[in-house]
Amino acid sequence: MKVQVINPNTSQSMTASIGRAARAAAGPDTQVIACCPDDGPESIEGHFDEAIAAVGVLEEVRKGVAAGYDAHIIACFGDPGLLAARELARGPVIGIAEAAFHVASLLCTRFAVVTTLTRTRIIAEHLLRNYGMAEHCTSVRCVDIAVLELETLGDDALVERIAEQALQARDHEGAGAIVLGCGGMADLPARVSERVGLPVIDGVAAAVKLAQVLVEMGLGTSKHGDLAYPLAKRFSGRFGHFGG
Amino acid sequence: MKVQVINPNTSQSMTASIGRAARAAAGPDTQVIACCPDDGPESIEGHFDEAIAAVGVLEEVRKGVAAGYDAHIIACFGDPGLLAARELARGPVIGIAEAAFHVASLLCTRFAVVTTLTRTRIIAEHLLRNYGMAEHCTSVRCVDIAVLELETLGDDALVERIAEQALQARDHEGAGAIVLGCGGMADLPARVSERVGLPVIDGVAAAVKLAQVLVEMGLGTSKHGDLAYPLAKRFSGRFGHFGG
Amino acid sequence: MKVQVINPNTSQSMTASIGRAARAAAGPDTQVIACCPDDGPESIEGHFDEAIAAVGVLEEVRKGVAAGYDAHIIACFGDPGLLAARELARGPVIGIAEAAFHVASLLCTRFAVVTTLTRTRIIAEHLLRNYGMAEHCTSVRCVDIAVLELETLGDDALVERIAEQALQARDHEGAGAIVLGCGGMADLPARVSERVGLPVIDGVAAAVKLAQVLVEMGLGTSKHGDLAYPLAKRFSGRFGHFGG
Amino acid sequence: MKVQVINPNTSQSMTASIGRAARAAAGPDTQVIACCPDDGPESIEGHFDEAIAAVGVLEEVRKGVAAGYDAHIIACFGDPGLLAARELARGPVIGIAEAAFHVASLLCTRFAVVTTLTRTRIIAEHLLRNYGMAEHCTSVRCVDIAVLELETLGDDALVERIAEQALQARDHEGAGAIVLGCGGMADLPARVSERVGLPVIDGVAAAVKLAQVLVEMGLGTSKHGDLAYPLAKRFSGRFGHFGG
Amino acid sequence: MKVQVINPNTSQSMTASIGRAARAAAGPDTQVIACCPDDGPESIEGHFDEAIAAVGVLEEVRKGVAAGYDAHIIACFGDPGLLAARELARGPVIGIAEAAFHVASLLCTRFAVVTTLTRTRIIAEHLLRNYGMAEHCTSVRCVDIAVLELETLGDDALVERIAEQALQARDHEGAGAIVLGCGGMADLPARVSERVGLPVIDGVAAAVKLAQVLVEMGLGTSKHGDLAYPLAKRFSGRFGHFGG
Amino acid sequence: MKVQVINPNTSQSMTASIGRAARAAAGPDTQVIACCPDDGPESIEGHFDEAIAAVGVLEEVRKGVAAGYDAHIIACFGDPGLLAARELARGPVIGIAEAAFHVASLLCTRFAVVTTLTRTRIIAEHLLRNYGMAEHCTSVRCVDIAVLELETLGDDALVERIAEQALQARDHEGAGAIVLGCGGMADLPARVSERVGLPVIDGVAAAVKLAQVLVEMGLGTSKHGDLAYPLAKRFSGRFGHFGG
Repeated sequence: MKVQVINPNTSQSMTASIGRAARAAAGPDTQVIACCPDDGPESIEGHFDEAIAAVGVLEEVRKGVAAGYDAHIIACFGDPGLLAARELARGPVIGIAEAAFHVASLLCTRFAVVTTLTRTRIIAEHLLRNYGMAEHCTSVRCVDIAVLELETLGDDALVERIAEQALQARDHEGAGAIVLGCGGMADLPARVSERVGLPVIDGVAAAVKLAQVLVEMGLGTSKHGDLAYPLAKRFSGRFGHFGG
Repeated sequence: MKVQVINPNTSQSMTASIGRAARAAAGPDTQVIACCPDDGPESIEGHFDEAIAAVGVLEEVRKGVAAGYDAHIIACFGDPGLLAARELARGPVIGIAEAAFHVASLLCTRFAVVTTLTRTRIIAEHLLRNYGMAEHCTSVRCVDIAVLELETLGDDALVERIAEQALQARDHEGAGAIVLGCGGMADLPARVSERVGLPVIDGVAAAVKLAQVLVEMGLGTSKHGDLAYPLAKRFSGRFGHFGG
Repeated sequence: MKVQVINPNTSQSMTASIGRAARAAAGPDTQVIACCPDDGPESIEGHFDEAIAAVGVLEEVRKGVAAGYDAHIIACFGDPGLLAARELARGPVIGIAEAAFHVASLLCTRFAVVTTLTRTRIIAEHLLRNYGMAEHCTSVRCVDIAVLELETLGDDALVERIAEQALQARDHEGAGAIVLGCGGMADLPARVSERVGLPVIDGVAAAVKLAQVLVEMGLGTSKHGDLAYPLAKRFSGRFGHFGG
Repeated sequence: MKVQVINPNTSQSMTASIGRAARAAAGPDTQVIACCPDDGPESIEGHFDEAIAAVGVLEEVRKGVAAGYDAHIIACFGDPGLLAARELARGPVIGIAEAAFHVASLLCTRFAVVTTLTRTRIIAEHLLRNYGMAEHCTSVRCVDIAVLELETLGDDALVERIAEQALQARDHEGAGAIVLGCGGMADLPARVSERVGLPVIDGVAAAVKLAQVLVEMGLGTSKHGDLAYPLAKRFSGRFGHFGG
Repeated sequence: MKVQVINPNTSQSMTASIGRAARAAAGPDTQVIACCPDDGPESIEGHFDEAIAAVGVLEEVRKGVAAGYDAHIIACFGDPGLLAARELARGPVIGIAEAAFHVASLLCTRFAVVTTLTRTRIIAEHLLRNYGMAEHCTSVRCVDIAVLELETLGDDALVERIAEQALQARDHEGAGAIVLGCGGMADLPARVSERVGLPVIDGVAAAVKLAQVLVEMGLGTSKHGDLAYPLAKRFSGRFGHFGG
Repeated sequence: MKVQVINPNTSQSMTASIGRAARAAAGPDTQVIACCPDDGPESIEGHFDEAIAAVGVLEEVRKGVAAGYDAHIIACFGDPGLLAARELARGPVIGIAEAAFHVASLLCTRFAVVTTLTRTRIIAEHLLRNYGMAEHCTSVRCVDIAVLELETLGDDALVERIAEQALQARDHEGAGAIVLGCGGMADLPARVSERVGLPVIDGVAAAVKLAQVLVEMGLGTSKHGDLAYPLAKRFSGRFGHFGG
């Protein structure tokens, strides 16, 4: 099985780190192809960054479909371009936020999300609503560290900052599990879990595992209705290659 | 006052028709600048088309901000790129779906939407949910005519097809007003209204009027929180010009 | 165009102040007729005051319809008598709470409301739910000043009290705009906005502008269904003149 | 115990019929005082009728409080003036719609409402939402008979018309009980129940019984918060007697 | 009238205390039969305890139906086995949580719940959602005392602990009434009410009164649809006697 | 890895069939232990059957935990005893309804459920609400075949009956995938899918795969909060062995 893991931003080091987490989750019998767009923002911290990054995600999914990959992961916590990407593929397309939410809801009655910037909290809140998970989440909490600073801060300090928020959610809101709300935290679930005594879910691993499950079950994106292949039409300019 | 009206698809004739409707709504003291992206799909009929078109919308908003326009309209019924566009502008940014929904909710307790393709119904339903308008809408109905065929069909036949759905909504669901769910229907509200005996709202006119209202009130997009200007960062490749 | 602005309480000074705000918003080409009921409470601070004031609102709308006014504003933040008033009129009828909520939702993803008394918070919360705006509001906050004391307190002190709540909503709840929750605050949006750095919406101005928009678009209250003119019937006693 | 049953319209025959149903429900140890306002509409079939009738309800509640009655019933299916009336009384105030919904939800997982006019369906739907009962109701169905024609139609024909709708709800929507949606149907629950084989709830009886329960438990309207007695203030004109 | 009051746990002293409260509520003309299962947990403090206790509840309801009792009360705040028990009986079956919520919603616009353990808060929250009462509740608060320690603590201390939470809900959340969230608090409503100045509802009394109301109205569980008698089938082992 | 698959009813043939489906899904490296309770109903077709069956489920989970199984599946579409079972186990506990819903929501924007009896539709609807999946489901449809007749009917006829409902959901409601709503349909997804041209999800396979995923990720039920091990206490009678 070949699973394409798309980091929607253009950061090579984050792509590598996400690839590592994905491979660790996937196991030896699945080939993980980690990639990121050629064109787009180096980090995603708002609605605008997301909208531009979505195009890169779609380009990568298109390449992945052409290469015959079996499933496609969108490895940014806002799941940019998810429904659009599903139109392009017959295989499953999974966002890391949705994957993490679904998994968390199997482990506890209420989970909390710890993400990077307060500015992007609304993105997670909109996804919780859209996926039907709002009632299952006690709060979306932020460590207020920019995505690209996650690496420079160092894991020790980052774990501490995440744990601080997670413990607040556990002790004051009754959260029974923690969702890590950024692809750049994919290396940390074990350490945070040890620190806070709760199951901690990284969306990258969760999405890879769910993609494997769907492929193994012979299930893919519904090609009936709004997720059918895009209607053939003329695209102009830079996007001309999308036309058909 | 200068109001930029962006047709998110690349159809020149639809841009012209939207521009006419916008100018008719705006009145003589407001300059309407109708435009469409250089790059993108010639019609928008699904999640994928929307995601690509959103980039064109953002390019146009960016140009419009640089040109000092006072407000920006996204004239496709899925409101593609709306929150992202708001990050780019201090002036108001209004989608025609949200404008039509808000206006309709001031005229009746329940309205219906008549749009083009069954395939895109989910897009309108998601917007109704996201804007808090789901309970105010009896149904989203479709005439099942492709966007680019709206013009070739001819207004008479199109009015008839829309009226057929509108009358169903009026007589069987209690809809008190009709929202036209496509920028390509911007010329038709008066004729449909005469035919079905209900207020009929075209989102292009509604959005232009709401934009004028906000500008005249001295109100613009909140620059505090998630709609503040995008954080400066490196963008690569085709999107390099977005970096800062 | 003639827009009737109805202060539902009987305070002459508040009627005058609301009229000033309405005229400032309406501009020179629209005639604003500010009025208040002859009969009813001098301020509205609860469900009971609202229910009585609604009759005065309906009497005024009736007079306004007879006088040929084009639109009708209900200038109390509970929108008393709104749906009933819509039955009486073919022109638009707009409440200042609904107008403010709709406008605020175009400027930010989450707004806060600052109103007068804790006692009336539930009224605003019910309206937010009824209009589909509950998810778009972070909280309804109260300065705990009686409506008639708003004037005696003085604008400086009042702005300070409002700003105190608004800053809490901005900094701790992520509110991106502030809705002023009382017709008696209609003079203050600019000063509060300057103080807190957010868009601030006064419902009186918002309602007048929305009414103008609807009239200019040729739109009025749907006369099909539950907002059709009241069924003719006998009314007895003090309300005999409502019969037909 | 003395329970005041207020018919919000001015129809004497309907007041008598409601009083009969109330007395039958109340039993011998409770005195039922059936009354209706001196002033107001002779039937209630829309938002406007409701708003005017609410004043009459409040006048009657005020008299009833002065007379020392223990509880107050609002016997029109829209529960007009309910929260306002609660401000006036320390004893319980119960609307027949809310009473019927609560009782029905104890008997089945989904009930249906059969009311008079299609025009007023929205009123019942709003109440279902406001009381948290929307999910427990399969539909609000209408026999499309004017309130005052209920009497002239004759019970046989009326039972048949109600049963027709009730059977549709039972067989096609899975409704397990039927709520009669009009004070003018208070004599019919037994006959409709026999006809459709489901529990049938009349709100007048339900409200009287719930009021007795609350009084016997020593419970009354909370006088803390938004249902405390109205704040003393000046009322002018026809409503001057409400001031204090 | 004979009302069966089932304490779902096996504590004899709690059964006695619940019986006392039920008899006080029921009055002299109703016979209260207080009972508890032979088999099951001695207190109910979680989902597991509830699931086991539900069987005991069903056994008791079955005996109660055979004995010709007119109504059945499930006197544990999680309402364990409620829908299942309704299948067994033609008479009404009422849970004390649902009874308390319905009664509270007739007295105020927002109530609070004070229950025993933080661990069981989710059970009350799920019920509020299931019954449509979530919006009517400000919060579920816990005194963090184990059910069986309620008795040893002594009423004075217990009232104080409950009042502490109730006052927080009253003063900081606007709660207008308090629901006691445990059958073991059935003796306390008067004392807590005196202490906090709000109506206080004990579910045992509320359920008994509602059951009487339904029986007196000739209403019982709908035997059409999902609450019809269980389909006859083979049960094996310890549960063989349930087969038919 | 050892996964315990619990058929909550006592039918040996259904246990065998569920075991086959589970093994087919689990693959060679996972040992599937299919079992059913000794005591309980031979099929589950209502709230009562569910409540009794839940005890059998808990007994089996308890044995499974003692035997060191890594995960536990509840293979009846009502997920009986799910939260209670989670209290007993550190490993994951998955219901087949929740598994199927989660998987379906990854493949389409709206799915439909086809289950056995109209009587049990409410159970699926309650689960959809409880899991946050109601908006993602177009309808719950029933073939109206008793659970134990599924086998005697024969697969051909059963596939046809399911397909009939599925095609209605696909063509009239826009369903993009079908969830099979009964453990007794676990053999059929491929045949139904071929017949209706949509992805078809069997919950048994879905639950087994999700359980494997969680175990492989090192995730289990949160032992903090309401899913912690049951508080030790005395159980009497037939349930004495649950005490501690």
